Amino acid sequence: MENEMNINIRRAVKEDCLRMMELVQELAVYEKEPEAVTVPFDHFVESGFGDKPIWWAFVAEAPYASISSLSSPTGGDRGGLEVVGFALWYIRYSTWKGQRMYLEDLLVTENMRGKGIGKLLFDRLIEECKEKKYSGMAWQVLGWNEPAINFYKKYPGVQFDAGWTNCMINF
Amino acid sequence: MENEMNINIRRAVKEDCLRMMELVQELAVYEKEPEAVTVPFDHFVESGFGDKPIWWAFVAEAPYASISSLSSPTGGDRGGLEVVGFALWYIRYSTWKGQRMYLEDLLVTENMRGKGIGKLLFDRLIEECKEKKYSGMAWQVLGWNEPAINFYKKYPGVQFDAGWTNCMINF
Repeated sequence: MENEMNINIRRAVKEDCLRMMELVQELAVYEKEPEAVTVPFDHFVESGFGDKPIWWAFVAEAPYASISSLSSPTGGDRGGLEVVGFALWYIRYSTWKGQRMYLEDLLVTENMRGKGIGKLLFDRLIEECKEKKYSGMAWQVLGWNEPAINFYKKYPGVQFDAGWTNCMINF
Repeated sequence: MENEMNINIRRAVKEDCLRMMELVQELAVYEKEPEAVTVPFDHFVESGFGDKPIWWAFVAEAPYASISSLSSPTGGDRGGLEVVGFALWYIRYSTWKGQRMYLEDLLVTENMRGKGIGKLLFDRLIEECKEKKYSGMAWQVLGWNEPAINFYKKYPGVQFDAGWTNCMINF
């Protein structure tokens, strides 16, 4: 999928994992939680590309030339393209609705935001749901994140439900 | 796992699916959404016991004799035991924390509530997380559901986070 910005959306491959984790870490620093990312790198790779994958992803690539301030590109030379964002999901199972896509992360590196890359990724996710015949797509947004909520409101049929509380135990 | 009530907790098998769906439907009726369960039965079975399972479950069985008003037992004679509740989960993937158990449903049939069956199931889930080395366990509760919240508060280390909004598109 190409467009006027030469952004390319494709399925993530194993070699993208290092760059993806770099982007995850960048976001954690931005959210002032640099210590929060505790998943070991091998575990991340194995969970996506081992015998029993449990996550899948699309990445967004841009030509190096179009990236205003690129810090430490990783993953080798991929034809002059660098991953600047990704969308990662797993399959959730609803006993009411069946298999659905659960969008865990939709992430674009800071200096490439506001260029429509999130929309390219999100559109591709909707296509994937239809191809895989998932009954729907679900995700969460922070209640105060108005720009994100406005972004999602542009998609017809998106429903919002603020009545739930997330619960968690860490082991 | 046995106890004074003779409740038995075990892994769900394929033959439990019909009874599990019956319990799901019972809950939907109780929540005044009898039409909301649209997942085809074969899809439910295939998703749990096909080539690529994406959900897993424990069931709670009680002797027929201990069940005050049992309606239409299904699944044949299982040694005089009937499934009266279940806990169903899938694996979620957090790019910060790795593989976690996501508890989708924790469900006990109406006339067997208040007997500690939910606790037996929940305790078994915690064991499973530790056995499988999941980094944590996550689930959601309706913000107004005080009895459920109080139940979860009894477990040390449970964190609650009400700041998120669920988003969804149905296809």
